[in-house]
Amino acid sequence: MRIAVDAFGGDNAPLAVLKGAEMAVRELGVSILLTGDEQKIKECAEENKISLEGMEILHTEEVFDMHTAPTELIKSQKNTSLALAMKAAADGDADAVVSAGSTGAIIVGATFIIKRIKGVKRPALGTVVPGKNRRFMIMDVGANAECRPEMLQQFGIMSSVYLKNVEGVENPEIALLNIGTEDTKGDTLRLEAYKLLQESPINFVGNVEARDVPKGVCDAVITDGFTGNITLKLYEGVAGTLMKMIKEMFMSTLKTKIAALLAKKKMYSLKSMFDYSAIGGAPVLGVKKPVIKAHGSSNAVAIKNAIRQAAICAETKICETMADGMAQIQSADEKE
Amino acid sequence: MRIAVDAFGGDNAPLAVLKGAEMAVRELGVSILLTGDEQKIKECAEENKISLEGMEILHTEEVFDMHTAPTELIKSQKNTSLALAMKAAADGDADAVVSAGSTGAIIVGATFIIKRIKGVKRPALGTVVPGKNRRFMIMDVGANAECRPEMLQQFGIMSSVYLKNVEGVENPEIALLNIGTEDTKGDTLRLEAYKLLQESPINFVGNVEARDVPKGVCDAVITDGFTGNITLKLYEGVAGTLMKMIKEMFMSTLKTKIAALLAKKKMYSLKSMFDYSAIGGAPVLGVKKPVIKAHGSSNAVAIKNAIRQAAICAETKICETMADGMAQIQSADEKE
Repeated sequence: MRIAVDAFGGDNAPLAVLKGAEMAVRELGVSILLTGDEQKIKECAEENKISLEGMEILHTEEVFDMHTAPTELIKSQKNTSLALAMKAAADGDADAVVSAGSTGAIIVGATFIIKRIKGVKRPALGTVVPGKNRRFMIMDVGANAECRPEMLQQFGIMSSVYLKNVEGVENPEIALLNIGTEDTKGDTLRLEAYKLLQESPINFVGNVEARDVPKGVCDAVITDGFTGNITLKLYEGVAGTLMKMIKEMFMSTLKTKIAALLAKKKMYSLKSMFDYSAIGGAPVLGVKKPVIKAHGSSNAVAIKNAIRQAAICAETKICETMADGMAQIQSADEKE
Repeated sequence: MRIAVDAFGGDNAPLAVLKGAEMAVRELGVSILLTGDEQKIKECAEENKISLEGMEILHTEEVFDMHTAPTELIKSQKNTSLALAMKAAADGDADAVVSAGSTGAIIVGATFIIKRIKGVKRPALGTVVPGKNRRFMIMDVGANAECRPEMLQQFGIMSSVYLKNVEGVENPEIALLNIGTEDTKGDTLRLEAYKLLQESPINFVGNVEARDVPKGVCDAVITDGFTGNITLKLYEGVAGTLMKMIKEMFMSTLKTKIAALLAKKKMYSLKSMFDYSAIGGAPVLGVKKPVIKAHGSSNAVAIKNAIRQAAICAETKICETMADGMAQIQSADEKE
């Protein structure tokens, strides 16, 4: 098992990436193909006493420029550390890819370098987030700002396969994010997607309202990339703002400071429930090799967890299962 | 000043409505036109020792059936308490309308009974919600699941007029909800709406990301009714779920129970910041008379606050100001 890791993706690269990769080699027994400037990688490893055992370096001095359009990845930026990681997976030199770099560029690389699974209209980005009763996936969280009903249907199928294989969820409950629970609710996109999801070989449980999403009432929340991105960021934003306000409240008087001391441990475990780094990265689903987008601000633990996700995806042959799933709905369509 | 109040709208009607109306008469000095079953209203008032002074009753036994389509309000349901309240405002028998009934039916009534302001493409529903640094309005929160760019432009103008007149915000900062802050971000709808908002006679401050929304970084968040509805409900949902989890955390051990006692007062004020009933109802903007949709689960205080909002809207002649605003952008369009 070899995972290609973009050593120069993310706010804390290359240090956090190297540390995370080191942890992954040691704890998970995977081997790593680092892409990026060999000298800088070696210097950073030496300075920080990071062992590069179990890692190979694919050298390039170029790093994807976040100020260019994502599509530049396959044009002016095709020799960047991100593009090379994608290419390694496409060519069979790696079993999966991990990067904390530009989301848009990762989608472009996955789609045009690794390429789509036959029948997949558009690859999409899923993210698993914490909920009161269970974790759940939101998909798509930003790969496709504009969606057609068939795309939402495929997101449902792909998230179901992912959740079964990687998260170990039996018979995942897939729901459509909508402005009401009745099947007559929503815009044209939702009305048509509802019908298609109902006909799909998944456990479709109908519409879910945004109000109920945080409770964890289903395993996947299916939506277009625009709404999904808003949903994910608002989820993060409200939880973060509220936690900050609670912290300020605890620090406001002597009484509340004592309260904070008493509740510290429990508050901490509540806060860690909303800690994304423990959950890992966002899978790009619908392409021929597993691609995990780690959060831009990933620390070493987050990188390690993203590598673990990538390894599980590769091990359980999730892309092959997804290809089978796609072939099934296609042959069903053809019979009609 | 006379406000038409649908006595049979909402989960707690007519009791909460009558109590709220009584408070409004006493505290705000407005007079109320109650629509609904006269006998039931009088019985409920007597049983609960509610004074009907300052109120007149417009009798009808019919109540809008929540299971019919909203458009039925102007067909089979045109003699319901909701439709009569709308008609009273349309005919000049009342200066504004308040109802805690069906959102869809209220939009239909506002649009087709009270009628649109000249130039307004679609009336929309705004809601003011709490943020860390300031309250802000989200608009549209559900009147229009499908929107065109010109509609988002008008939502920006209408929310600006409302915030100035009713909330007393000087030079309101109007932002477009989007998946990035750069003006190149978003779907076609956002890209075009951005340009139109920029050309509008308002203080347009650009795109706002969902992550920053809870901080209260602007006075109005402009979006389509689908996304707005998701945003509002998720906002409520995440805050509610998190508060519930914190409460459970506080109740979990002896130590945390003591902490809860110490932090009680401060926690309560934090919680009340997220209490919608204090803020009031959602205005339907773009129609010829002020219409306030109170939350379905409104208690008496929420009803009173919705009546206050309606009274301020009528007093400050917000609909007239909005008509002037619309005439301005229209004449600007014609000159081009």
